[in-house]
Amino acid sequence: MQNVGTRFFWVSVAFLIVLSTAGALAGEPASLDTMYRETAEQITQAAMGNETAWERLAFVCDEIGPRLSGSAQYEQAVRWAVEQMKSDGLVDVSTPLVKVPHWVRGQERATLVHPFERKLHLLGLGGSVPTPAGGLLARVVVVNNFEQLDALSPESVRGAIVLFNPPYEGYGKTSRYRFSGPSRAAKAGAAAVLIRSVTQNSLQSPHTGMLSYDAANPRIPAAALSVEDAAYLERLFRTNRQPTVRLELESQTLPDVDSANVVGEIKGARRPEEIVVIGGHLDSWDVGQGAQDDAGGCVVAMEAARLIRSLGLKPRRTIRVVLFANEENGLRGATAYHDWIATDPRKHVAAIELDAGVEKPQGFGVSLLKLERQSPAWSEAFRRAREIGKLLEAIEAGTVSEGGGSADIGPLIRDGVPGFGIRSEGGSYFDWHHSAADTLDKVSPDHLRRNLAVAAVLLYVLADMPEPLVTQ
Amino acid sequence: MQNVGTRFFWVSVAFLIVLSTAGALAGEPASLDTMYRETAEQITQAAMGNETAWERLAFVCDEIGPRLSGSAQYEQAVRWAVEQMKSDGLVDVSTPLVKVPHWVRGQERATLVHPFERKLHLLGLGGSVPTPAGGLLARVVVVNNFEQLDALSPESVRGAIVLFNPPYEGYGKTSRYRFSGPSRAAKAGAAAVLIRSVTQNSLQSPHTGMLSYDAANPRIPAAALSVEDAAYLERLFRTNRQPTVRLELESQTLPDVDSANVVGEIKGARRPEEIVVIGGHLDSWDVGQGAQDDAGGCVVAMEAARLIRSLGLKPRRTIRVVLFANEENGLRGATAYHDWIATDPRKHVAAIELDAGVEKPQGFGVSLLKLERQSPAWSEAFRRAREIGKLLEAIEAGTVSEGGGSADIGPLIRDGVPGFGIRSEGGSYFDWHHSAADTLDKVSPDHLRRNLAVAAVLLYVLADMPEPLVTQ
Repeated sequence: MQNVGTRFFWVSVAFLIVLSTAGALAGEPASLDTMYRETAEQITQAAMGNETAWERLAFVCDEIGPRLSGSAQYEQAVRWAVEQMKSDGLVDVSTPLVKVPHWVRGQERATLVHPFERKLHLLGLGGSVPTPAGGLLARVVVVNNFEQLDALSPESVRGAIVLFNPPYEGYGKTSRYRFSGPSRAAKAGAAAVLIRSVTQNSLQSPHTGMLSYDAANPRIPAAALSVEDAAYLERLFRTNRQPTVRLELESQTLPDVDSANVVGEIKGARRPEEIVVIGGHLDSWDVGQGAQDDAGGCVVAMEAARLIRSLGLKPRRTIRVVLFANEENGLRGATAYHDWIATDPRKHVAAIELDAGVEKPQGFGVSLLKLERQSPAWSEAFRRAREIGKLLEAIEAGTVSEGGGSADIGPLIRDGVPGFGIRSEGGSYFDWHHSAADTLDKVSPDHLRRNLAVAAVLLYVLADMPEPLVTQ
Repeated sequence: MQNVGTRFFWVSVAFLIVLSTAGALAGEPASLDTMYRETAEQITQAAMGNETAWERLAFVCDEIGPRLSGSAQYEQAVRWAVEQMKSDGLVDVSTPLVKVPHWVRGQERATLVHPFERKLHLLGLGGSVPTPAGGLLARVVVVNNFEQLDALSPESVRGAIVLFNPPYEGYGKTSRYRFSGPSRAAKAGAAAVLIRSVTQNSLQSPHTGMLSYDAANPRIPAAALSVEDAAYLERLFRTNRQPTVRLELESQTLPDVDSANVVGEIKGARRPEEIVVIGGHLDSWDVGQGAQDDAGGCVVAMEAARLIRSLGLKPRRTIRVVLFANEENGLRGATAYHDWIATDPRKHVAAIELDAGVEKPQGFGVSLLKLERQSPAWSEAFRRAREIGKLLEAIEAGTVSEGGGSADIGPLIRDGVPGFGIRSEGGSYFDWHHSAADTLDKVSPDHLRRNLAVAAVLLYVLADMPEPLVTQ
């Protein structure tokens, strides 16, 4: 807490700015869009001319490549990020320990062997156990949802490969078959699980992702098929052609590895003990380049801080860039960060997550779990968030919606820290997500700059506004 | 030729229909849309309720699979098509000989070995020679067009793998790098060629297709990379990272094989010696299922004839369904058909090709090479083609454009036979074309029915209209 006198001074300054620039009535509080209009324009202009974010993105994608937890590439990315943060002038750059899982894909293959021989397009799911040596040969039973699985006779499931081939109804709804399908099928006696990749379009490129074994059932091998191959197996199954597949997954789960989040700061000029976090996750799946998911988010977070500093802006609060470890297959980085800050007397007042790709941004979402939904305090905080949104209308990114931020800042949001997530058009994101096609060519340099503009404006205003969005 | 009296009778009937249904002025000739409105509605209604085309398409895709010339699957498709035509009541069903090339892909692989090791996504080009045993290891030189190739020093190209990475500017323009890139690069001393797949979107799925070696230069191995991998190699090349690739193609060119076109007819009720051909190509590439290219076209052609016959319609002229062999890698079926009809006194008066996919149809294109472009005769023929188009407006497929039909009916068009090609929206066709993603799931049953409606209406009117579109 600052003393009351200081706060009064700045509220008065804001009030005078309103009077002089917007001709508002006396007594009306300063709106954030009025206070920060000029600075936001300056930040936006710098962001729209930025080249460094792209150069950094290209380095992460092309020179480091995919960065699964436990891999040498992830550790290379950590070293690179530390160097970048230091050269950007961030302080207290550190790599707090995160113990991460170490799952290695190995060779894998699926072949339709009856009624025809065809190579299938698959990717094992993250965390899957391997098939027995020599592979697993079994007939395929196809279901479109859990209800169909539950309705099957025990004999029809026992020893079979269950293929979940649900229609794509958005990532959130459809990914549950990937998460809990393996244990649901194991409970019913299945020998292995295949899922339709969680995407609308695949062009024969399968999409991996995490599964979640429950403790009560056997761990059975699980892999994602391309949309095309899942549809093909379903057609054969529905016409009683009794498809039979040989599945070979040589995955290994090795001992946990000492890894790290990467953290760096710009100390606040007036309230250094209040922290605004901005970050993405530095890890990725082991295919493609993890360009949209989430190298783009990481370089935007780093660059937003650098840009603010390079413009000579000195926000009131501390800005902290956090690149999280192990978002994809464990969320250990998010948990470790939350543990790491537990004894720190400083206080998080906002957290911005960049993990929805860097397609053309439309605005941001905000989560205010500390406040009762639609209470006057909630409405006031949301209204002020929309004032920040107005600063982004010039680049068509002024939409402010409810709910923002998720995986890596989830623990903070649940603590009541206002959480923000930048929202993009997202038209193609899930065509690439977790697949070999998530590569640098999917990122538009213009869209990357727009994301940088949104992130830097949002970050600066949250770090500098007279009072935090939510008083804690 | 029918006798003049018969012709006069029917012209008079048409005239009376015009008078009675449209109230036209005396002396105005019958328009085709007036004459055939009712029949077209009947055909369209039947087509829009059709199930057989889909069942046949599913059989070709799922039960037969890809059908490259020389393969057992192609011959299976021939036997299947003969059975279908006979059971449809077509007559003179035959399988005239076509000697086709027999190229077999074999194992193939491309690996980036410097500056990083990465598996690349590739498909050898049809007709490519193999690499030497053990593969070919060479640095990669990237060009975006032939001019850049020509500007390179001999030393920089000699022994290198030339990668053509042109921007996608439509299939026609961009596919020239696939056709003539290998020999152009061989002339400059290259050891092998890679091309960016000829598509806008690949999601790491490479697209194959035919190359064309010229006689003057060495035949060097050639393969297509995914769009992503081509872009990656170009970025490494442009930043002087000297990408080096190991290319392994085990393709074989075996002796030509005796294969066949499939032909069946409905004899014309009044002018059996005038033939209207409708067809697609029964072969496909050896990846995916050749669903859009061109199983869809084949089943629509077959079904259009069957549908006309099942409605009890007895068109004036002979309808001939032709399923062509070897469109993809040789056009031997088209040539063989042209040779086969050379001594037949009967006359082709129109040819409809279905080889542009079966996405939602918009109408058809027409080629009238016998007539001087924009001569009164050309204008009159085109005007009458547009009258046929009007019959398709009810299903939003009434657009008639210039230029229609290509590969398989090319020899007929060049002889002056009016050529027709059904046109579709084509929004995604080249995303799937010649790739593992050209599978049944890409076809909409509704769009297939619409294509059937367009084909059957066009076929019936061309076969029944009082005079051919172009008098020969």
